[in-house]
Amino acid sequence: MTKPNRRDMFKLGAAAGATMIAASARAASPAPTAPPADNSWSNSLGAPVDARPYGQPSKYESSVVRRYIPWLSPTRLADASFTPLQDQPGIITSNGLFFERYHSGVPTVDPKEFRLMVSGRVKKPLLLTLDQIMRYPSVSRIHFIECPANGATEWPAAQLNSLQLTHGMIGCAEWTGVLLKTILDEAGIHPDSRWVLPTGSDGAHMDRSLPMVKCLDDCILAWGQNGEALRPEQGYPLRLVVPGWQGNVNVKWLRQLQVGREPWITREETSEYSELLGDGKSLGFTWVMDAKSVITFPCPEKPLTQGPGFYEIRGLAWSGRGKVKYVDVSLDGGVNFQRAKLDNPILDKCMTRFTLPYWWDGKPALIQSRVTDDTGYVQPTIVQKHKFWGHDPVYENNSIQTWQILASGEVNNVQLS
Amino acid sequence: MTKPNRRDMFKLGAAAGATMIAASARAASPAPTAPPADNSWSNSLGAPVDARPYGQPSKYESSVVRRYIPWLSPTRLADASFTPLQDQPGIITSNGLFFERYHSGVPTVDPKEFRLMVSGRVKKPLLLTLDQIMRYPSVSRIHFIECPANGATEWPAAQLNSLQLTHGMIGCAEWTGVLLKTILDEAGIHPDSRWVLPTGSDGAHMDRSLPMVKCLDDCILAWGQNGEALRPEQGYPLRLVVPGWQGNVNVKWLRQLQVGREPWITREETSEYSELLGDGKSLGFTWVMDAKSVITFPCPEKPLTQGPGFYEIRGLAWSGRGKVKYVDVSLDGGVNFQRAKLDNPILDKCMTRFTLPYWWDGKPALIQSRVTDDTGYVQPTIVQKHKFWGHDPVYENNSIQTWQILASGEVNNVQLS
Repeated sequence: MTKPNRRDMFKLGAAAGATMIAASARAASPAPTAPPADNSWSNSLGAPVDARPYGQPSKYESSVVRRYIPWLSPTRLADASFTPLQDQPGIITSNGLFFERYHSGVPTVDPKEFRLMVSGRVKKPLLLTLDQIMRYPSVSRIHFIECPANGATEWPAAQLNSLQLTHGMIGCAEWTGVLLKTILDEAGIHPDSRWVLPTGSDGAHMDRSLPMVKCLDDCILAWGQNGEALRPEQGYPLRLVVPGWQGNVNVKWLRQLQVGREPWITREETSEYSELLGDGKSLGFTWVMDAKSVITFPCPEKPLTQGPGFYEIRGLAWSGRGKVKYVDVSLDGGVNFQRAKLDNPILDKCMTRFTLPYWWDGKPALIQSRVTDDTGYVQPTIVQKHKFWGHDPVYENNSIQTWQILASGEVNNVQLS
Repeated sequence: MTKPNRRDMFKLGAAAGATMIAASARAASPAPTAPPADNSWSNSLGAPVDARPYGQPSKYESSVVRRYIPWLSPTRLADASFTPLQDQPGIITSNGLFFERYHSGVPTVDPKEFRLMVSGRVKKPLLLTLDQIMRYPSVSRIHFIECPANGATEWPAAQLNSLQLTHGMIGCAEWTGVLLKTILDEAGIHPDSRWVLPTGSDGAHMDRSLPMVKCLDDCILAWGQNGEALRPEQGYPLRLVVPGWQGNVNVKWLRQLQVGREPWITREETSEYSELLGDGKSLGFTWVMDAKSVITFPCPEKPLTQGPGFYEIRGLAWSGRGKVKYVDVSLDGGVNFQRAKLDNPILDKCMTRFTLPYWWDGKPALIQSRVTDDTGYVQPTIVQKHKFWGHDPVYENNSIQTWQILASGEVNNVQLS
C-alpha cells in the first residue's frame, strides 16, 4: 500500500472514523444502536448544590488514582506515587493525582507557624511569615515537575507493563508565587554568593545546592497550585519550583534558604541523586530534565478495545530546556516517522499535548513518539542511552518509549534492541 | 505628590517592600523575628505515600469552598454555588471549587449507559457511546465558563460584601474533547441546517438553541477537565463547551444534539436567560459574555491586614470575544488609571491574570480594574450599564467593580454613581 501523505492521512482518518464507528457498533457491547438500558437520572432529581462544598470526582472514576510500586522502597514513608497519565486528558495534572515523592512522609505544616529563613552570605538575613511572602510581586506560570528516577525501572529492560508506572513520576501545574530572585534581592546577595541551599521542614530536612544563576532566573517560591493552595503532598504551604530541573531540587515544605560560596555536597547529592559511573566516579548535579515524550493513548492501560479502524494517537511531550518544537510518531518501531499535531498553548518547560490520526488495520504494530525541543535536542532511543549510561543506572531515562500493539488490541511495553 | 511613572512605581514598590516588611514585622502577630512556636513536623515522620491515592487539600484550607446564597433560589436543587476567587491564585480554577449551576440537581450518569444521539436535519443520524466519541480527533483548550447572572445581585446597588458572591459564578479550566464540528460533519448537515439544540440528560432536560456558525467554530464536546474526567457537577461524562458564551448554553450531561432550520425557543430561552425590557419586549439570545475584570486582592474577603506599605494588587480578566489586550487599574475611583502587568499565557476566551505594585499609604482608597479586549471593547462602568439596561435586570452585569479600602485595611463593595 502506498503510504498516504499527512493530509490524506487525516482525510482517511475522518472517513474511516465514520465507517468504523458503524462497524464497531455491531461488535461493541452494549450495542450503541440501542438506547441506554438505564437512564433513570433523566427522570429524577439529582444532588443539591450544598452537597459538595468541595467537589470530588464521579464514583465511576474511583479507579483513577495515584499508585505506587510495593517493592520500590522498603517504607511507604520514603516512597513515590505515580500520576495516572493514561487518564490525563490534557497538559494540566489534577492536584489530586499529582505524583508524590518524599523522604520522611508528608508533614502537616501549620501556615500560621510557618517561617522562611534567608541566611548565610546575605546583607540582611530575613525571617518571613507566609503572609509577608505573599505581599511581594508574584507570577503564575505553568510548568512540569518530573522526578529524575521517572523510568528508572526500565533501564535494563521493559519491566512494568504500565504507562502510569513507567512514566507517571511527573505532573504539570500552574504554580503561583514569588520569584526566588525577588526574595534574594530583598536579602541582598554578595558578588561571591554563587550557591543557594533550600531546606525543607519535613523530618528528612531535604536539601539541595542550587547555582545562583538558576535561582536568579526563573525559580518560584510557590504557594498556589492549579487554582488553590499547594497540596500537602506538594509542599504546603510553600515549595520551591525550579522549572525544568529534577523534581528533588523543587524543595517542598520550605523552611530555609542558605546562601553561600560553594555547593554543600549534602547527603541528597551524594548517596542520592548522583550516578555511579563505570569507573567508580560519581556524577552529580545533573539537574536539567532532558526532552521526553510518551504516547498516552493507546498504552498498556488503554488498549484498542473496539477493533480495527480509526483511532487518535495522543501523547504528552516536555523539555527542561525550553519549549517543545515538534513531536514525531512512528507506527513501525522507529523506521518511519510522521509529524504530530501540537495543541496550544506551547509553553516553556511545560507539557505539550500532541495527537496523530491513526488508522489501525488490526495487525501488530510498534508505536513510538520522539520529541525535539527548541534547542534542537532530539529524544534518544534506549540503545543510544545505554551507550553512554550502561544498562544499570537509576536516573535520566528519557528514552523513546515503544508500545507494542497486538492483534487483540492489547498494548505491551517493549524495548527494541 | 508627583505621580510616579510606571517604572518608578515598580522601583518604589520593590524598595517599599523591603522597608514595609521590616515595619510590618513589628506590628504583625505572631512576630516574624521569632522562630515558630510549633514546628513539630520537622522532628517527626509524616503521612505515608499510600495514605491518599486521590489527594485532598490541607486541613488548614477547609474554609476554601464553594458557597451559595440561601435566598437566591427556593431550592438547592435548582441553584448556584460560587467559586472562591479570593483564593484562586492563577487562571486555572480547581475542579473542586468550580462554580455550579443546575436546574434539577446533579445527576449520577453511568458512563457505560451514556448515549449521545445526533438527530434532526442530518444525513446520517448517530447514536454514539462515550468510547466511540473518544475515538475522534480531539483538542484540549483552556477556556472560562461564566453564568450570565454573575453579578446579578449588584445591578441595583452594591449588595453583597464578597468577591466570591459578586463574581464567583465563573471558572476557568482546560477542557479536552472532540470539536462539535467533527461530530456534525460525521452526521452530515444539510445546507439549511442552521441551528443545533443540545439537550442535557438531567431531570430538567436543559436545552438551548445554538446557531450553526458557532457550532462549527470552536465548540467542544468535552470529557476532560483539568487533568481528569469531567466532574459530576460539570456534566460528567460529557458536556458542551461553547467558548466565551453564557454558561447555560454549555449544556451538561449531554444526551442529544438536534439539528434544525430555526431556533426552538425553549423554556430556557423565554422564561429564563432572556431579559424583559422596559417596553415589555423580551431580549433573548444574548450569548456572548462581554469583557470583564475584577481585583481579587485586596477584596472584602482579603483585606490589608498588615498595615500600610507595599502590597501587590492582583486580579483576573477575561473576554468572551477573544483575548485580553490590557487591564488598567485605578486607585482613585476611576479618575486615573495605570496599566497592569499581564501574566502569560494570554489565551482566547480564557482568564488572564494581572498584577500592579501598590504602595498603600494607610488612607481610604477606591480601587478598580478595567479590561480592554482585542476587539477594542472596554469594560463599562455600572453607570454606563444602567443607561441601557436600567437598574433591575438579571443578566449581563460586566461592569467595573469598585472596592473601597478603609483606613483599617478592611475592604468594602461599593458602587460609584
